[in-house]
Amino acid sequence: MTDKAPVSRIPLTVLGTGAMGTALVRAWLAAGHPVTVWNRTPARAEALAAEGATVAPTAAAAVAANRLVIACLLDDASVGEALDGADLTGRDLVNLTTGTPAQGRARAAWAEERGARFLDGGIMAVPPMIGEPDSGAYVFYSGSSALFEEHRDTLAVPAGTRWAGEDAGFAALHDVALLSAMTGMFAGVLHAFALIRHEDVAPKDFAPLLSGWLTAMAPAVHKAAEQLEAGDYGLDVVSNLAMQVAGNATLLRTAEEQQVSSELLTPYMDLMERRLAEGHGEEDTTGVVELLDLRRGKDA
Amino acid sequence: MTDKAPVSRIPLTVLGTGAMGTALVRAWLAAGHPVTVWNRTPARAEALAAEGATVAPTAAAAVAANRLVIACLLDDASVGEALDGADLTGRDLVNLTTGTPAQGRARAAWAEERGARFLDGGIMAVPPMIGEPDSGAYVFYSGSSALFEEHRDTLAVPAGTRWAGEDAGFAALHDVALLSAMTGMFAGVLHAFALIRHEDVAPKDFAPLLSGWLTAMAPAVHKAAEQLEAGDYGLDVVSNLAMQVAGNATLLRTAEEQQVSSELLTPYMDLMERRLAEGHGEEDTTGVVELLDLRRGKDA
Repeated sequence: MTDKAPVSRIPLTVLGTGAMGTALVRAWLAAGHPVTVWNRTPARAEALAAEGATVAPTAAAAVAANRLVIACLLDDASVGEALDGADLTGRDLVNLTTGTPAQGRARAAWAEERGARFLDGGIMAVPPMIGEPDSGAYVFYSGSSALFEEHRDTLAVPAGTRWAGEDAGFAALHDVALLSAMTGMFAGVLHAFALIRHEDVAPKDFAPLLSGWLTAMAPAVHKAAEQLEAGDYGLDVVSNLAMQVAGNATLLRTAEEQQVSSELLTPYMDLMERRLAEGHGEEDTTGVVELLDLRRGKDA
Repeated sequence: MTDKAPVSRIPLTVLGTGAMGTALVRAWLAAGHPVTVWNRTPARAEALAAEGATVAPTAAAAVAANRLVIACLLDDASVGEALDGADLTGRDLVNLTTGTPAQGRARAAWAEERGARFLDGGIMAVPPMIGEPDSGAYVFYSGSSALFEEHRDTLAVPAGTRWAGEDAGFAALHDVALLSAMTGMFAGVLHAFALIRHEDVAPKDFAPLLSGWLTAMAPAVHKAAEQLEAGDYGLDVVSNLAMQVAGNATLLRTAEEQQVSSELLTPYMDLMERRLAEGHGEEDTTGVVELLDLRRGKDA
């Protein structure tokens, strides 16, 4: 790191040195940024002092140390508590704490009332991916575009950056939407592994097939997007809802044969059947989104 | 097609000319194979006569016409009904009808009793992908390896071939396992689209993020496979079950904010909580597979 001149790197503060906060601090230190850290449990912050970080005794002192302040705490309530006594006037607060869209919006208003510019972030990575340029890690940012543009290079040090919009809730919205989709995918993956579990099929031989199939099928989301944009679930349908429902019977029967609980698959299958019963058999399964929408009926 | 000499291509029979059967017939005809077809509803088979197929009046006649017989019917019962009066002695029966592993095994025994070699197949494609070399379409085959080796080139005409094992149930097992995982993925995808639905986020802008994220996360199945092979869910854990359960709260709260039903995500989240309550918080979520296994407890 001796060939990197810290003089040209802007100093910043990181509040919270859990696994993710620590990974962020290390990435910025490695890139030559002076970093001031604070953690509620001081021992975790002090471990970073040996690596070059300055440990602040209080969150207020850490905020006072630098204009650019990164918060990476347990949850949104922790952000409010940590910053309760801090002077945010003129600060650029970047909140990488996990939260909901509404929390992002409320925290943005809260920060702006206190004289700070605010950016909410949603980290699409686990800590070992941070600071690794080839890891594919990135962060959604939303809120103050001025803050984002000014600090983009610094923010790009630990992970890639993706702009999600001026609405401060959009970073969390994108983050949670992708994590929700992933949760569904992993539920399906565990069902698949359960099916082969007591058969003479090695998980390590099955895994490449599974990964390849999911990767090949993921682009189907583009057609779903087109149908949603057009408001037409009958657009360019290949395998319609009626055919899918018929196919589900084989999936359920196989689960029964293999003595695997079908509880991870049945909620979606039930919605498909409801949608079919409502007369949408010729459409794509994308129309199931209507049944997830709890505003449906309310506005009608 | 005039440059393709049909003389060198082996003749075959296709039973069933629904959407998939028709796509298969067209692919073999295009490659120069003489094809005899039969369909319960004759009109659908006769449409293929104009494209060069020979239409047989009965399934038994279609079976008598060629040694290699492909069945692509509605379901396993239809296979039994169609072939009820046919002489299968010396035939090579390839069953591409959708079914379960147990149906594949039973049909293999049934065919062998009647003097036929048998191969079960699971088609990983929709009809428009058939006969398109770049579509990624492929078929799992299991059963008689002698049949598979002898007819591999012919079988490879409509779609790629993957050997799933001598156990005739393995083609269906692999097929259903991959489709089950995909079902979970699409459930998650619809939840994600529902979350952004009433926001100023265009589905077509969101789709590439979603596809990219799922594609980036799909290789996580390799670690799950390693853990299953090792029988150790604590192997090489990055984000443990306790952290995942904590994160689920943000996903659920966001769904509530966005007025989206969480019914597609909660079954998996509930299993994660059960597994956590059983003391596996430091392990990976892969251990949830234990809770799907209905043999668990029975053997204990």
